[in-house]
Amino acid sequence: MDLNALRNLSYGLYVVSSMDGGRPVGCIANSAMQIMAEPASIAVSLNHDNFTTKCVEKTGKFAISVLSEQAAPSLIAKFGFRSSKNTDKFQEVPYEKYDGMPVLKECCTYVICQVTDKMETETHTVFLGSVIDTQFLKEGTPMTYAYYHNVVKGKSPKTAPTYIPPSEKTKGAYICTVCGYIYDGEVPFENLPEDYVCPICLKPKSAFKKEE
Amino acid sequence: MDLNALRNLSYGLYVVSSMDGGRPVGCIANSAMQIMAEPASIAVSLNHDNFTTKCVEKTGKFAISVLSEQAAPSLIAKFGFRSSKNTDKFQEVPYEKYDGMPVLKECCTYVICQVTDKMETETHTVFLGSVIDTQFLKEGTPMTYAYYHNVVKGKSPKTAPTYIPPSEKTKGAYICTVCGYIYDGEVPFENLPEDYVCPICLKPKSAFKKEE
Repeated sequence: MDLNALRNLSYGLYVVSSMDGGRPVGCIANSAMQIMAEPASIAVSLNHDNFTTKCVEKTGKFAISVLSEQAAPSLIAKFGFRSSKNTDKFQEVPYEKYDGMPVLKECCTYVICQVTDKMETETHTVFLGSVIDTQFLKEGTPMTYAYYHNVVKGKSPKTAPTYIPPSEKTKGAYICTVCGYIYDGEVPFENLPEDYVCPICLKPKSAFKKEE
Repeated sequence: MDLNALRNLSYGLYVVSSMDGGRPVGCIANSAMQIMAEPASIAVSLNHDNFTTKCVEKTGKFAISVLSEQAAPSLIAKFGFRSSKNTDKFQEVPYEKYDGMPVLKECCTYVICQVTDKMETETHTVFLGSVIDTQFLKEGTPMTYAYYHNVVKGKSPKTAPTYIPPSEKTKGAYICTVCGYIYDGEVPFENLPEDYVCPICLKPKSAFKKEE
């Protein structure tokens, strides 16, 4: 069994959001799919540890912002590698509310869902949501998870369903301990300037660790 | 609400298969996603009307064959637009069994799952499966649903979660009544030779109907 083979399943890249009282919250998700055509229904898988999960439980509603290939890596880092519990992720990120749910203005499509059912697993809750609104918002090619990994060189956080621990292949490489980004530039890592920051999560050079 | 916006969710293209006694069965699915990393678990959404769904219920096991961009449109038609109830879809399609489940030899990755839970909806069953085996089988780029629609010019059958009825835009176009393929060649449809067949489901010219 080679779990890396599961990387051949295809996904998009989304910000799943909800509200914590009057405060917008959200996190990156790649596991979202349509379950029914009529009534249109979407399932999304969220880790129990995500603060957003608790807010979806409470409000019974969530929004999906479909990220395009133009989405800034720093935006993905903000929503993917920090917690809404103690960060206002929507600060400085332009958003609009639809049906009371926060949607990124920069996304190419939004979907607003009312939770109608859920399936519990050991680590993740699968929410089934009935689509109450969906629209194209902006031109753009939806970012696929493959594009995120291969072009943006992004990684999966430990709470992602698709997380795979670093393998033998990464031995000797410098890896960002926050987001898992593997440095692969031409300049040896040691020679990078001190103000170098991780291109994904923007953490400083000191956040990198050599994989032994 | 513009349901076409849901087309911006990203999917792969898979053959989900199982066994009906000693006979392999399977159907096309695009709604499959990983739910947990540890233990690795996959959810797949199958229409109640699919014969394969009943076989997954019975055996408690399913396989996912990840199709590559090289997958023949006729293969997709065979598994997507016919029923395993009265067709042996695996006839003339090379396959191998892993853990007793049939897997297409032409796929780039296979995943074998044991059903551990399910979520019922009005039209589809979402099976949660624990991964008991997964391997890379053949080199290839996994086919995305976008590639299937934009490059292969494929359509969704009426049982797909992502099915959208023909719109205003297709008025006057010739559409295959079996698989929904919209003819868009340069030669006017009327002038096509009598032995023309639908490139997706291989049905004859007579299966096409002009959208009024």
